[in-house]
Amino acid sequence: MTIGIIGSGNVGGALGTAWSQAGHDVIFSSRNPQSKEVQELALKAGPKARAASVAEAAEADVVLFATPWPLTEKAVRSAGKLQDKVVIDATNPLREDLSGLEIGTTTSGGEQVAEWAKGAKVVKAFNTIGYKVMADARFQGDRSVLFYCGDDPQAKETVRGLASDIGFEPIDAGPLVQARTLEPLALLWISLAIKQGLGFEFAYKLLRR
Amino acid sequence: MTIGIIGSGNVGGALGTAWSQAGHDVIFSSRNPQSKEVQELALKAGPKARAASVAEAAEADVVLFATPWPLTEKAVRSAGKLQDKVVIDATNPLREDLSGLEIGTTTSGGEQVAEWAKGAKVVKAFNTIGYKVMADARFQGDRSVLFYCGDDPQAKETVRGLASDIGFEPIDAGPLVQARTLEPLALLWISLAIKQGLGFEFAYKLLRR
Repeated sequence: MTIGIIGSGNVGGALGTAWSQAGHDVIFSSRNPQSKEVQELALKAGPKARAASVAEAAEADVVLFATPWPLTEKAVRSAGKLQDKVVIDATNPLREDLSGLEIGTTTSGGEQVAEWAKGAKVVKAFNTIGYKVMADARFQGDRSVLFYCGDDPQAKETVRGLASDIGFEPIDAGPLVQARTLEPLALLWISLAIKQGLGFEFAYKLLRR
Repeated sequence: MTIGIIGSGNVGGALGTAWSQAGHDVIFSSRNPQSKEVQELALKAGPKARAASVAEAAEADVVLFATPWPLTEKAVRSAGKLQDKVVIDATNPLREDLSGLEIGTTTSGGEQVAEWAKGAKVVKAFNTIGYKVMADARFQGDRSVLFYCGDDPQAKETVRGLASDIGFEPIDAGPLVQARTLEPLALLWISLAIKQGLGFEFAYKLLRR
């Protein structure tokens, strides 16, 4: 399979290198395919990789967009005809300061609850996995993570303890505004459980190395 | 610690039971504390648990809301003064058909890209973890999951293969609209990496049992 990489930065570079080493033909593209960066990237990735123009990369069997969000619209539009093409979108509409997403998220239930519960120290937690995992967080020697977020450090410590007490690995996800990530994460869990057929006996864990 | 449970359904029931068995005093509340359901729940949970009114539960050291979203505003407002209280919000503003969130999410980069890339078979993928994980998905015998979503089954099969090829455990997250969960998941990863100090060498995995 030929894979065209549009946006040959960290993400495009890592994926293209991994794919070329797995035996795929990879085209790293750049507005200037003669530039040192993209030439070196292709060289390092090995004999199955080469550098070329965006237009050429866009003709591959599969096209990956791994551009910074502000450049994505232009990159997609300048890629030419993509009709019936497999396009992988690896972009994220991140705000520059990483405080949120540029588009798509506007608020969260957690923030709404904090508004209703005047003066309370609201912590968003125990919302990202199903009740069977809450009843028992242990998975054959492993344990489910429990993400929590909130604006009051002491309240968060309390919740962290309550999560530990019943077997979870608690993970501080940041301020309450992060409920905007934890609620979609819940929706992902529910969709996997019910619509994708994974059932109720699974949980998230963080791998580390 | 005394924990008041408001919304004694599956989630509230599981958490309250686990906490009472971990040694905390738990108050399961109900609009009718004499009802068979909540009495049985408290009985099953053991000697540290009891059933009481919502007002009594709301006086506990920590108050957990685990109500269905449409009942949450009323539950919070009827809980009385919550000033300076640790409130755990375990609710999720789910649409009744689980097709999305009632509030907070409106669109996604993935859907936007699909609009720009007319006719393309867009798959959202390789956006939820950092480039170091993309370069090497293996974690001491374990491997990172790779969530992907899209509306074209064949394109998704292609992406699934490409994820496997470089060591990921691919997980189908559903239609392209699920980019509304995968992009916040990316933001969570980035926030944990950069703001919460976890660094770049971690990934998501699904535990199963």
